[in-house]
Amino acid sequence: MKKVAILGGTGYTGIELLRLLWFHPEVEVSFISSESRQGEELAEVHPHFAGLSSELTFLASDPEEVPADVEVAFCALPHGSSAETAKALKEKGIRVIDLSADLRLKEPELYQDWYGRVHPFPELLDEAVYGLPEVNHQLIKAANLVANPGCYPTSVLLALLPLAREGMLPERGLVVDSKSGVTGAGRAPSQAFHFPECNESFKAYRVASHQHIPEMEQELSACLGRKVNMSFTPHLIPINRGILSTAYLPFTKELQEEKVRELYREFYNQAIFVHLLRKDLFPETRWVKGSNYCHLNIKWDQRTNTLIVISALDNLVKGAAGQAVQNMNLMFDLPEATGLRQPALVP
Amino acid sequence: MKKVAILGGTGYTGIELLRLLWFHPEVEVSFISSESRQGEELAEVHPHFAGLSSELTFLASDPEEVPADVEVAFCALPHGSSAETAKALKEKGIRVIDLSADLRLKEPELYQDWYGRVHPFPELLDEAVYGLPEVNHQLIKAANLVANPGCYPTSVLLALLPLAREGMLPERGLVVDSKSGVTGAGRAPSQAFHFPECNESFKAYRVASHQHIPEMEQELSACLGRKVNMSFTPHLIPINRGILSTAYLPFTKELQEEKVRELYREFYNQAIFVHLLRKDLFPETRWVKGSNYCHLNIKWDQRTNTLIVISALDNLVKGAAGQAVQNMNLMFDLPEATGLRQPALVP
Amino acid sequence: MKKVAILGGTGYTGIELLRLLWFHPEVEVSFISSESRQGEELAEVHPHFAGLSSELTFLASDPEEVPADVEVAFCALPHGSSAETAKALKEKGIRVIDLSADLRLKEPELYQDWYGRVHPFPELLDEAVYGLPEVNHQLIKAANLVANPGCYPTSVLLALLPLAREGMLPERGLVVDSKSGVTGAGRAPSQAFHFPECNESFKAYRVASHQHIPEMEQELSACLGRKVNMSFTPHLIPINRGILSTAYLPFTKELQEEKVRELYREFYNQAIFVHLLRKDLFPETRWVKGSNYCHLNIKWDQRTNTLIVISALDNLVKGAAGQAVQNMNLMFDLPEATGLRQPALVP
Amino acid sequence: MKKVAILGGTGYTGIELLRLLWFHPEVEVSFISSESRQGEELAEVHPHFAGLSSELTFLASDPEEVPADVEVAFCALPHGSSAETAKALKEKGIRVIDLSADLRLKEPELYQDWYGRVHPFPELLDEAVYGLPEVNHQLIKAANLVANPGCYPTSVLLALLPLAREGMLPERGLVVDSKSGVTGAGRAPSQAFHFPECNESFKAYRVASHQHIPEMEQELSACLGRKVNMSFTPHLIPINRGILSTAYLPFTKELQEEKVRELYREFYNQAIFVHLLRKDLFPETRWVKGSNYCHLNIKWDQRTNTLIVISALDNLVKGAAGQAVQNMNLMFDLPEATGLRQPALVP
Repeated sequence: MKKVAILGGTGYTGIELLRLLWFHPEVEVSFISSESRQGEELAEVHPHFAGLSSELTFLASDPEEVPADVEVAFCALPHGSSAETAKALKEKGIRVIDLSADLRLKEPELYQDWYGRVHPFPELLDEAVYGLPEVNHQLIKAANLVANPGCYPTSVLLALLPLAREGMLPERGLVVDSKSGVTGAGRAPSQAFHFPECNESFKAYRVASHQHIPEMEQELSACLGRKVNMSFTPHLIPINRGILSTAYLPFTKELQEEKVRELYREFYNQAIFVHLLRKDLFPETRWVKGSNYCHLNIKWDQRTNTLIVISALDNLVKGAAGQAVQNMNLMFDLPEATGLRQPALVP
Repeated sequence: MKKVAILGGTGYTGIELLRLLWFHPEVEVSFISSESRQGEELAEVHPHFAGLSSELTFLASDPEEVPADVEVAFCALPHGSSAETAKALKEKGIRVIDLSADLRLKEPELYQDWYGRVHPFPELLDEAVYGLPEVNHQLIKAANLVANPGCYPTSVLLALLPLAREGMLPERGLVVDSKSGVTGAGRAPSQAFHFPECNESFKAYRVASHQHIPEMEQELSACLGRKVNMSFTPHLIPINRGILSTAYLPFTKELQEEKVRELYREFYNQAIFVHLLRKDLFPETRWVKGSNYCHLNIKWDQRTNTLIVISALDNLVKGAAGQAVQNMNLMFDLPEATGLRQPALVP
Repeated sequence: MKKVAILGGTGYTGIELLRLLWFHPEVEVSFISSESRQGEELAEVHPHFAGLSSELTFLASDPEEVPADVEVAFCALPHGSSAETAKALKEKGIRVIDLSADLRLKEPELYQDWYGRVHPFPELLDEAVYGLPEVNHQLIKAANLVANPGCYPTSVLLALLPLAREGMLPERGLVVDSKSGVTGAGRAPSQAFHFPECNESFKAYRVASHQHIPEMEQELSACLGRKVNMSFTPHLIPINRGILSTAYLPFTKELQEEKVRELYREFYNQAIFVHLLRKDLFPETRWVKGSNYCHLNIKWDQRTNTLIVISALDNLVKGAAGQAVQNMNLMFDLPEATGLRQPALVP
Repeated sequence: MKKVAILGGTGYTGIELLRLLWFHPEVEVSFISSESRQGEELAEVHPHFAGLSSELTFLASDPEEVPADVEVAFCALPHGSSAETAKALKEKGIRVIDLSADLRLKEPELYQDWYGRVHPFPELLDEAVYGLPEVNHQLIKAANLVANPGCYPTSVLLALLPLAREGMLPERGLVVDSKSGVTGAGRAPSQAFHFPECNESFKAYRVASHQHIPEMEQELSACLGRKVNMSFTPHLIPINRGILSTAYLPFTKELQEEKVRELYREFYNQAIFVHLLRKDLFPETRWVKGSNYCHLNIKWDQRTNTLIVISALDNLVKGAAGQAVQNMNLMFDLPEATGLRQPALVP
């Protein structure tokens, strides 16, 4: 059994890593940390592990504490402090999958613009591999430092990369309207996510200003070969899990929907976790709740010459912890889907 | 007290009409009908009227049964049968507010294309006034037949008409991404709206093919003076009430957000129920739950030269029954907001 | 117009007082306070009042600031600080309706036992009238200080008082199992009420140890004429509003359900806001959402000789702000239901 | 791989069997049926199996169609028709786990009283083993016909059997107040479970008259050695999954909570899926969502000499499909927890 560590085991991403790694036949979690619950046992902190847990006890999120036989560490720490921990672990010879946003942008200036602080370790950015297995398969296998993609970016990139590779993203008018469940906002209590404030309501937030925009544009641009510019607005759905993204691409002439579908099929030919639904069946977040799958479909709106692409995934699985485990499998040279092929919890 | 009738008092629109007219100081419901609950008293069918109800008993939805002293009848019948009833009532000399889609489109061919059947009474279409009080104020006052707008169209038209009037709708690339609560689908049980099938999920439906599209394009085109073409996709939110629409308008050059805000303020100068929120505060459906208000805001996405307009309303109030009462007030020459200025139920 | 003040206008009870008093034809809110939002206007803090609000601005929760022409002040401050403010207002000659728990218990020792602190002003307890209009109608009319009942106690007392008056509460085995929506826990964010922690879940809390127990026992005992002892367990429902209480009373011999129903009808003969549903139709919280009504029903379980009583109300209305307005009406010698007879918001 | 069949694969229980058996390393589903979706492939009917499904196609629910090499068949058919199918399968030599209520009651008269029809095959009742593995472990191993317990009964029996075995159930005053998510009502659409009718609401139903009462009394009586009589009232929670039962047991003298806890620990000494939480931590349905665990805790209410027992489980897992798989494991002489030890999906 290979040994792994989870730094930050009381946030939603950490909890989900614990759940997913429970299913994994080749890996054992041998270290878990938390600032707030140090010294407590796993099942005390997370009662849904009662009867399941091994002897794990939460320790401090200190790289020093991570045992030397750990081969991969998941950093699920708050944005900002994660990079520092990742750096220390790496120096200790431990490969790192960082689930924060700290290592995703290649240009430190962009980080500063969108996250509002100077990047503490810009020297790490070149080394970090963007951990989207559907495109960076080979790079991830060899990586010592993986920047696990954001939840919105995963949902948008999987929807648009097949078009980007074909040069089919419009120069202007690209719109992505995304909707996320509340776990996307993390586990720290605040007024906006107090139950009665978001239950039975729906809103847009960070309109045209969400910090995931440069990450999406960076990856799409890299694939397309020129700068992509998109208008992106996220919305909050009063559900626990799930992201649904609806992308609108205006074209000047008619496309054949079936030909576009063919592009997607081909692009995701080897992708276990991306599934194009049959014609006119559109993704629903419930079909991927708790699973590592991303469901896609496209629709050609012939009245307006607009291509509509819809994707759905679970923000905590394919949008975070599941993707991290998928990356880990590649790093360990295991079959990519090891421990990850659970069906969604429906209903 | 003026007397009114409600034809179809067990659907969500009928229930909401009953609630709103309860507050109305000048109007009395003297007739109410239902196919399924004939002969039962109001509070038996709707226990939330226990202790409140007058002596109302459900009768058949038969125009013959409507008393002659009724001055306005609300038709909240299923699409298709509503026009027939409206016609009979009108011939009886009763003014009608029709809440179905039967009388909204001016061209019977469009009705046939989008609703899948030949329009039964095309001769009514010219006479019917489109009941959006913010634009057809004077026409509604004099109307004998009012076509109450759809819920999505109300939310989209209030968002875009101020721009249409200024000729500011783009020729291509206009996208509207709307999201609605489940009452928008009506009260008849079906698999898709069975609680566990839509709870904790989110999906798009009728992608680029929703029957409200021609209604929106018709009204925008009439205002703009040329044919408008929009890509519209509705989504289902697992909440009871509320529509939030996010419109994206690509421009080729920069706009001044403040100038656009000024256009909205001016356009809605006299509009009691439309409220432009302060800069960077975006609509949330909870703020209009149970109220007749529509909240709006705009955002200029300078990175992409896109104008984003967001509107929120309660699909059963400003999107249906509240707007119908507002229309009735105009028809009765009462102050437009009579009986309608209740604050939302928050939270 | 009579003038009233609201101390604490940003909690859920304060927000609901603002909503309900908006409907009131005889009363004007002339003062409103908040610690956190001082200096801001009403509609800035609560956007659902946009377009409705008068010129109200939030001031400090300082009794000194309350204008002298205010006739009644609602104290919707945190438990603990409310008594002090109530005392100061009373000394200023302003009648007070206190919505905290500070003045509900007659014995300061009980307060200390259940609330964990010494009662600061035990001298107020004798003077304070327990504000349940269905039983203390006359006392409330004359009161200068009204202790507005708790939400659980209102739901339980309305369910059991008709039996208590007849001496029909069992000496042992009285069980009340209550369930409340999340607004009952207040508006301050915390881990337990963070959306993803309570959404899609259900739990009991403060099992057999909730601080509302002595309040219920005090009032039932006063009515029955001997000490009542009940086992009470509250539960949390993932909804915004509503309390449903299910009471179980074991008897040693058979009761006639119809005779018990008759007791209830007689007891609530004059009660506008308490409604016994027809036989075998049981209360649902949605039928009282946003309304001041309490729905009741009873069922004789003949297999076990148990009388089951079920009540439903909206914890923010009949369980807090609505009841406070009902008390205010009595204090002003207005008809008890003035401004309060709105139907529930269904669905 | 052992082969099993699922009769009724489009209801919630059938869907959940498919999900759980997906995890099972020793078993393969080789037959699946549905009346409504015959001829369609698994992933067409249940898109969450897209990418996962084998070649399964829905066939008719006809015992003739079940291949002879199937060793165990799960009957997840509507109550009433299930017994007939079970009988035919058994005669074909296939062992049956029946998830309907048809075979749970030992006395056909009780079935007639509570289910409103004459039992079609009373001769099966003696043979059928009640499939609660925590008590009938040995009988299940040898059974050809297992009656899988109801969801409420599982939650109540696991809460009370440790007391029943010790003779500690009170002769009168035993009250169980249960609350269930909406999947407990099945998948067929109806007005009561239409999303807007149960969302944001809470109610009791079948008060003191639910058809699961005789099943619970039968099993408790068998364990206690005398007739048990309980007052049981179920309630509907607007969530997908989960049952929480709160049992109240009045005693005439004081109990030591710790001693009672010890009874539970001992009773469930060998039970993998029943977990007594630590003192004063009470079950929450989210901690067992999607898992086969049942969480329990007890509280001694010393003020009233009442013992309170609370249990939580997932009605579709430990309350239906998970328990059925647990029974299958016993019948196959596999370790009881094979394929079932997944942690809950939190949040």
